[in-house]
Amino acid sequence: MQDCIFCKIVKGEVPCDKVHEDEDILVFRDINPQAPVHLLIIPKKHYNSIVDMTETDAALAGHMVNTAARLAVASGVAGKGFRLVTNSGSEGGQTVPHMHFHVLGGRQLSGELG
Amino acid sequence: MQDCIFCKIVKGEVPCDKVHEDEDILVFRDINPQAPVHLLIIPKKHYNSIVDMTETDAALAGHMVNTAARLAVASGVAGKGFRLVTNSGSEGGQTVPHMHFHVLGGRQLSGELG
Repeated sequence: MQDCIFCKIVKGEVPCDKVHEDEDILVFRDINPQAPVHLLIIPKKHYNSIVDMTETDAALAGHMVNTAARLAVASGVAGKGFRLVTNSGSEGGQTVPHMHFHVLGGRQLSGELG
Repeated sequence: MQDCIFCKIVKGEVPCDKVHEDEDILVFRDINPQAPVHLLIIPKKHYNSIVDMTETDAALAGHMVNTAARLAVASGVAGKGFRLVTNSGSEGGQTVPHMHFHVLGGRQLSGELG
């Protein structure tokens, strides 16, 4: 995806504050954090949103969820608590059309989920 | 988990408005919906939160994410958009200590993630 900002980050054409990288995913800090810890977990392969990930991609989705939990622990927010979110489409509040999970922690989050 | 309300729902001891069930997961409508579509996706096996799911459970977590997307499509909210959320711990806003994903859709969700 030539014009996708997250694909450019994956390719190293746009910088990021990297937290984790492996063969399939990249994790970096959100540039407009909504909480003391606000990570973005993205697949290196472009998917518009989770709707475009099929059962074939379930292992990748599961790896992202598991990495989210491990990084919440490593960031020191897992004890008190954190939230994992992915938005799909405009009513979901998705702003970058490259599938990503948000990990938010480090403060009391609202019981309102959106 | 003897006193876990979601384990009781899995065992059929407490009723739910069931949307989907397979060998590993159960999906039902939230009794206090925050959006026109508000589903809860739970593993039948008890995990306190995603922190307790390891890489061994990644296939299960991925299946839950994939099922969320498929049910968002089936519920007619995927076109306009929806949100997938899991909370862990008190600061994350978790209220039932049995791991679950929320699927919210059918209205414009806030850009504030908590």
